[in-house]
Amino acid sequence: MDLAIRNARVATSAGVFSGDIGVQGGRIVQLGRVDPAVAEVDAKGLIVTPGGVDTHCHLDEVMPGMGHEAENFGTGGRSALAGGTTSAVSFVRQIPGHGLAAVVEESFRRAARSRIDYSFHTTITDPTPEILAEIPSVLAKGIRSLKVFLTYDTSRLDDGAFLRVLAEARKGGAMTAVHCENYHAIGWLTEKLLAAGLTAPKYHAWSRPKVVEREATYRAICLAELVDAPIQIFHVSCAEVAEEIARAQARGLKVWGETCPQYLVLAEDHMDRPDGAGFMCSPSPRTVADQEGMWDMIRRGVIDVISSDHSASNLTGEHGKDIAGPGASFRDIPNGVPGVGARMPLVFSEGVGKGRITLPHFVQVTATNPARIYGLDTKGDIAIGKDADLVLWDPAREVVLDNAMMQHAVDYTPYAGMKVKGWPVATWLRGTLAMKEGEVLAPEGIGRFLPRDRYALAEPRVKVPNGFVAADIA
Amino acid sequence: MDLAIRNARVATSAGVFSGDIGVQGGRIVQLGRVDPAVAEVDAKGLIVTPGGVDTHCHLDEVMPGMGHEAENFGTGGRSALAGGTTSAVSFVRQIPGHGLAAVVEESFRRAARSRIDYSFHTTITDPTPEILAEIPSVLAKGIRSLKVFLTYDTSRLDDGAFLRVLAEARKGGAMTAVHCENYHAIGWLTEKLLAAGLTAPKYHAWSRPKVVEREATYRAICLAELVDAPIQIFHVSCAEVAEEIARAQARGLKVWGETCPQYLVLAEDHMDRPDGAGFMCSPSPRTVADQEGMWDMIRRGVIDVISSDHSASNLTGEHGKDIAGPGASFRDIPNGVPGVGARMPLVFSEGVGKGRITLPHFVQVTATNPARIYGLDTKGDIAIGKDADLVLWDPAREVVLDNAMMQHAVDYTPYAGMKVKGWPVATWLRGTLAMKEGEVLAPEGIGRFLPRDRYALAEPRVKVPNGFVAADIA
Amino acid sequence: MDLAIRNARVATSAGVFSGDIGVQGGRIVQLGRVDPAVAEVDAKGLIVTPGGVDTHCHLDEVMPGMGHEAENFGTGGRSALAGGTTSAVSFVRQIPGHGLAAVVEESFRRAARSRIDYSFHTTITDPTPEILAEIPSVLAKGIRSLKVFLTYDTSRLDDGAFLRVLAEARKGGAMTAVHCENYHAIGWLTEKLLAAGLTAPKYHAWSRPKVVEREATYRAICLAELVDAPIQIFHVSCAEVAEEIARAQARGLKVWGETCPQYLVLAEDHMDRPDGAGFMCSPSPRTVADQEGMWDMIRRGVIDVISSDHSASNLTGEHGKDIAGPGASFRDIPNGVPGVGARMPLVFSEGVGKGRITLPHFVQVTATNPARIYGLDTKGDIAIGKDADLVLWDPAREVVLDNAMMQHAVDYTPYAGMKVKGWPVATWLRGTLAMKEGEVLAPEGIGRFLPRDRYALAEPRVKVPNGFVAADIA
Amino acid sequence: MDLAIRNARVATSAGVFSGDIGVQGGRIVQLGRVDPAVAEVDAKGLIVTPGGVDTHCHLDEVMPGMGHEAENFGTGGRSALAGGTTSAVSFVRQIPGHGLAAVVEESFRRAARSRIDYSFHTTITDPTPEILAEIPSVLAKGIRSLKVFLTYDTSRLDDGAFLRVLAEARKGGAMTAVHCENYHAIGWLTEKLLAAGLTAPKYHAWSRPKVVEREATYRAICLAELVDAPIQIFHVSCAEVAEEIARAQARGLKVWGETCPQYLVLAEDHMDRPDGAGFMCSPSPRTVADQEGMWDMIRRGVIDVISSDHSASNLTGEHGKDIAGPGASFRDIPNGVPGVGARMPLVFSEGVGKGRITLPHFVQVTATNPARIYGLDTKGDIAIGKDADLVLWDPAREVVLDNAMMQHAVDYTPYAGMKVKGWPVATWLRGTLAMKEGEVLAPEGIGRFLPRDRYALAEPRVKVPNGFVAADIA
Repeated sequence: MDLAIRNARVATSAGVFSGDIGVQGGRIVQLGRVDPAVAEVDAKGLIVTPGGVDTHCHLDEVMPGMGHEAENFGTGGRSALAGGTTSAVSFVRQIPGHGLAAVVEESFRRAARSRIDYSFHTTITDPTPEILAEIPSVLAKGIRSLKVFLTYDTSRLDDGAFLRVLAEARKGGAMTAVHCENYHAIGWLTEKLLAAGLTAPKYHAWSRPKVVEREATYRAICLAELVDAPIQIFHVSCAEVAEEIARAQARGLKVWGETCPQYLVLAEDHMDRPDGAGFMCSPSPRTVADQEGMWDMIRRGVIDVISSDHSASNLTGEHGKDIAGPGASFRDIPNGVPGVGARMPLVFSEGVGKGRITLPHFVQVTATNPARIYGLDTKGDIAIGKDADLVLWDPAREVVLDNAMMQHAVDYTPYAGMKVKGWPVATWLRGTLAMKEGEVLAPEGIGRFLPRDRYALAEPRVKVPNGFVAADIA
Repeated sequence: MDLAIRNARVATSAGVFSGDIGVQGGRIVQLGRVDPAVAEVDAKGLIVTPGGVDTHCHLDEVMPGMGHEAENFGTGGRSALAGGTTSAVSFVRQIPGHGLAAVVEESFRRAARSRIDYSFHTTITDPTPEILAEIPSVLAKGIRSLKVFLTYDTSRLDDGAFLRVLAEARKGGAMTAVHCENYHAIGWLTEKLLAAGLTAPKYHAWSRPKVVEREATYRAICLAELVDAPIQIFHVSCAEVAEEIARAQARGLKVWGETCPQYLVLAEDHMDRPDGAGFMCSPSPRTVADQEGMWDMIRRGVIDVISSDHSASNLTGEHGKDIAGPGASFRDIPNGVPGVGARMPLVFSEGVGKGRITLPHFVQVTATNPARIYGLDTKGDIAIGKDADLVLWDPAREVVLDNAMMQHAVDYTPYAGMKVKGWPVATWLRGTLAMKEGEVLAPEGIGRFLPRDRYALAEPRVKVPNGFVAADIA
Repeated sequence: MDLAIRNARVATSAGVFSGDIGVQGGRIVQLGRVDPAVAEVDAKGLIVTPGGVDTHCHLDEVMPGMGHEAENFGTGGRSALAGGTTSAVSFVRQIPGHGLAAVVEESFRRAARSRIDYSFHTTITDPTPEILAEIPSVLAKGIRSLKVFLTYDTSRLDDGAFLRVLAEARKGGAMTAVHCENYHAIGWLTEKLLAAGLTAPKYHAWSRPKVVEREATYRAICLAELVDAPIQIFHVSCAEVAEEIARAQARGLKVWGETCPQYLVLAEDHMDRPDGAGFMCSPSPRTVADQEGMWDMIRRGVIDVISSDHSASNLTGEHGKDIAGPGASFRDIPNGVPGVGARMPLVFSEGVGKGRITLPHFVQVTATNPARIYGLDTKGDIAIGKDADLVLWDPAREVVLDNAMMQHAVDYTPYAGMKVKGWPVATWLRGTLAMKEGEVLAPEGIGRFLPRDRYALAEPRVKVPNGFVAADIA
Repeated sequence: MDLAIRNARVATSAGVFSGDIGVQGGRIVQLGRVDPAVAEVDAKGLIVTPGGVDTHCHLDEVMPGMGHEAENFGTGGRSALAGGTTSAVSFVRQIPGHGLAAVVEESFRRAARSRIDYSFHTTITDPTPEILAEIPSVLAKGIRSLKVFLTYDTSRLDDGAFLRVLAEARKGGAMTAVHCENYHAIGWLTEKLLAAGLTAPKYHAWSRPKVVEREATYRAICLAELVDAPIQIFHVSCAEVAEEIARAQARGLKVWGETCPQYLVLAEDHMDRPDGAGFMCSPSPRTVADQEGMWDMIRRGVIDVISSDHSASNLTGEHGKDIAGPGASFRDIPNGVPGVGARMPLVFSEGVGKGRITLPHFVQVTATNPARIYGLDTKGDIAIGKDADLVLWDPAREVVLDNAMMQHAVDYTPYAGMKVKGWPVATWLRGTLAMKEGEVLAPEGIGRFLPRDRYALAEPRVKVPNGFVAADIA
């Protein structure tokens, strides 16, 4: 045996047991009683969970002129490992006017220095016939998920473009992740707010109220139903939106919902602080009541993934939120918050620690479900044959979050000052000790690409053997 | 007294009574026992209802190069009177690139020959700042409702344009009628169908399934909620769509729903007949089961208006559905069915005659509710002070509909061959006998414009005294 | 003409018009312009509505040993007329162990002194085969509605008894009114409260929380669905209960909902006052937020009747709430509040005056709908042929309610001290002036019994010609 | 190691892996690679699942004079093992007029011969103060669940009795299982059917339509909400009933739903066969469409347990359904169908084999979830520390069910003639081979009682430290 973690409280997606975990060749090969190993770890009094799987994580994305590029796969992976996350799905982003091959290649090049395992969603920003024709070859590389935006000037698809992407996704057995907000409504509100001189960061929330997200979510569900293509709604911010997902699920549609820590612990009030720009993301954080609404939806299982939507803008300076100068209007402040490092401790403490979810439920929403929804077959649980991505938690340790702990390249964390109880004290990636007591040991380049074949969850509901797809027109 | 109709079974929106109706100066001035009159009518054994109010009726609309122009206000009014309708709301349609004033003027010019009273909805097809700025002056003429399309190449508004129109409507106290179908989805499906060689009229239904209508309806409701502007959803075709309206109503939103006879007595099967083009309209007729679903929604009050959406394309020849030649694909066949004449007898027979709705409910959906929703204060009921628009029905008369009975200029009716029981045997417009036993007596030009001031139903829910509209950004 | 009320603002269920009302032989025979009359009234500046129809009003009910008997048909009718109500439905209450004939006779005898028109619901408290067999003869007298209690020791029916009554109601075309609260749950909670020493009036609310009412309402609806018998849910107290009615209505069931002023203007806090017993009724008043929830349900039309549930216990003394002595526990304090006189002004002021409902909607919920639901064909609206039950309102008059104004025999009103705007200044019963400026002119005995034949609303949905009722076992 | 099962496809509640299972001391102590063992089994090509947990199984219940006693714990356990079930929860049934202690003792005595592990639900049929006072001592024995009937003459609790039981359950941390049908409605319908001469077995279905089950389910949920006590709804038969459970779950209530194979593969038509009595159970099987509705509810997770409700009446003879003689009316035919042996193969074949559920989902509904809901901590999954209750399945074997295969003492199976694919070829109980190729090796008496301490799922939602329970009156 290469590694034996002994006497742990082992938390899997199905339950908790006491015993050992045995690792060989990077995989979990033995549970319970474990043969002698080269590396022996006594985990008495500690909890082991699967390594976090963060299926929504912007790491060194190729986005010419878009900001956000503060992070690379080295620094981002360092932060991930520090926070107990061992896999991430970042993005290959289509550059309008260019084919996909080059950006795929460049994305792989950048990811080569990753400290964690990774895959990509391919963000389609302009589905021309040529781009659509190129999608199968990208899927064939194992990048079997797509991402579309229904808002943002630079990436928004109209419904026709969205449908064409969904149809390609259906054919190729790819899951499609959707950013759901109504583009025109946000534009219209923004214009009105700016015209009224309401430009401070807090008006970011005013520019995109819940109804704007709810509308686009319902629309995305309808279009996915039309095409019969599975989708995941990214970063659901409130229960009203989740309720539309619940309705779709009750009708048997293949629709899943993700949320992020920013919707569980941040609120729009944060944007009214002097450093308010640091809390701006889209959809906007809502209220404290909405946070509880989201926990309810997590408990109901309507929302079954908590990702970070890690986005690496600095507060100031290069790649900074102040790129448009001090006092710039909310419209000109880059969106997004960093969170790949904070996600697991926050959900552990706020979820398990405060009794909102059980330990296995924590495993499910942070690892098992994201892995399953995106076809990362070797990840997401502590079970025979799974990759030995493991996190050792000290459930008693109390920590006040600060930016240094995050170990990312970003100059702040929106979670600074928050107290958490329960802390990751060691992380293994495929059996190799990758972090110990905050020291990240994994070198750059140790991370591997996770190719994904067709998988059941991303298959359409209706099988059509060949030729004209009935679901397309039914 | 100018006119006394005596001994009638008088059906009002509130109930039915036996007695007389007295008219002077074109208005109902006496009910019950009526003073001697110049014109005396004995209505023993017959029913009197208010004249039908058809708030969705394309009559000689100014639509350069769009087809449909088979009808004018003379012929359309003739058909209306023959079928027991005395008021209609037609359309002033913005011609892209042109201001509204000219087309308003031309619309008034065309309507000058009307045989029935009329108003207009102003269809906004391209809400440039100039057009938006012109809307108040159109509203000030008493044309206090707007119409938008969410589909059709020639008229479709994107959500931003729709919001700008809704904001203007809100300010001006105008109701907005919305054609709800997803433009891009229809385009995408149509393209697929045509590429597969599925071009016959029946594929019209395949090109716009229910989900396409349901999505757009939900979206329209969300955007109206964002702006806090009252809307009416035009021509709801099925219960699934109506259910979204019901949900909005249950939340207290000012959302109303209209349907049309084509969704109560036609089905997509009709389009599979040799003359299938004659049944094409949008949304598409659905199935017989959907018809019953709509009657349920009418009974529940979710759908409270039945209009005709009268549209005057011939089957063949000039202004014909065959404009693109024989065997043209469904995409190139003009949409719409004529129905201003058939509406009242169909709803009377299928609704009241078959026990689906009561006689007062018939009055409500064909006259009272449309008048109230669109602010036609003098119309829609038999009550003191209302215009003496009256229809005398022989409830026992059985008629097989044919096109000649319709008395419109169109060369067919989609309802030919249908049997109805109950038939309008006389119609009065403001106290003047306008139709008797099928003979239309009203001359061209007798119809009057119905100016509409601000009215309660079209007012927003939230009052904002002035300045920046909170509802816009809340 | 016997009576002409001229120049009034006449509010009907369908709208409002300006003009005259002509009455002859006790009926409305002319509207609009009215022939000269014996009695001429100038109503300039005033509003005329139909006389209120209070279909839930305990007046001198034969209830040996039950309290409540403070009121008789003379005093109760006086209060009704003072408050603008001209018809009431009181109760014939089966005395267990006795047949119905005697109590019907006694009820007629007591009602003979009535100052207003009246009918009865027959309350079945013990549906033995003999009693069930007697029901048809009671219905045949025109007492075509039944009442059942699902709670109270003295009157509660178990579900089997309720079903037997519903089956009889179905056969006889009778509407059934249901008091919905879970008997056993209330008993269990009461026992716990008393055991804990929580005996003050406010614990009445604790003893019957919303869920107790919601459960019984759902149950009543299910059993009515099983039998296919129309029902009205009496005195709905909160939106959660009404929502179950809304769900049933959406499924097409014949289920209606009533509320009362005590659920619109009183709250459980009132029971915490020194005179708290005076606000005790069942279901219990809830909170101020629940009041608004009920107004929403009225606006939606889910709740379409506002009755008084007038109940005539004094605060103290004979027939007093203190019957069990000072400091008696809430269990031993008679339930119910008087309200036949206060109902119309309260709903006028709180509803119309505060913009919650329109004037025609006021007419509907206080007169038209109760009359229609209970088959009182000659009542409930201002229309040709209806009884000339009319109320003249001064919409500008502001009044602070006190008990003297109520003119009932009860020694208090729970609404004392409330300000209303809008006040009934005259009431006519079948064309006879019955109240003027608070002075009740109608003598005892003027009121007439209102016999009811079978009527549409109370008919089952499914017609079964004869023999075994399929709906009973489907 | 005592036992090693090698090279299996191991199905757990969380997923499927390939490898070995190691057992020592009756527990699973090693997974993946397993040390040499005394007993070695090569499971190549086969599937291993956890032993079935059947939490609703009437085995030799002490029911004087009630029929059903065909089975004892020896024969019933034999059938269970043959069908892959290793634990069952049977019933301690209170005999009215007697205390619980004696029947608990007798139940333990009867269960002493069990071939499988077991626990009991205590069925309370008459919660007198004495019985309620005795409940804590029964719970203290580890029998930590209660059962109540809302129907049946012999066992029905009224709502007050039910509340008293729920309150005891809450205090003692016990789950309560509820048989939900409306007692009085069934009685009323039965009486009508019999009076009409409709006595054949198929009228059993007519006597208890869906609404009767739906009502009682809603009521049970309301009363459980009032008390804040967790409940499981037994044997849900159709989606309409499950939808009420879904609504409760969405509101955060601790309500679970169970169904049984008879609602997934039988229909009311079966009762119209000559041996129709053999398919009678309560609630009644519904239609084929309802079966699919239930599979949907299983997929949604609303229904998360499939038990057998095994009931051991013979078709004929002693303990026979014909106890009342040939041609007896449905009312006099004992209810219930045997199924402890058929349950697992039926759900495997109809669920997994037909693609309705995944293999882990099969494990969840047949083992993991019932174990968790009833606190059987050592049962229900293949995980370190769990009891080595294991079933070896040949997924390719096709079997036509017949009664001999069931190996129970009952003279028939309602599933005779049904084809299943996938068959249990060996069963281990706590590591001991208990069945091999249909031969049951486990001796009588090997089964152990499974005591249950307080457990999380059965705890109330609201913590009240002591004294007066606020939830009782809130």
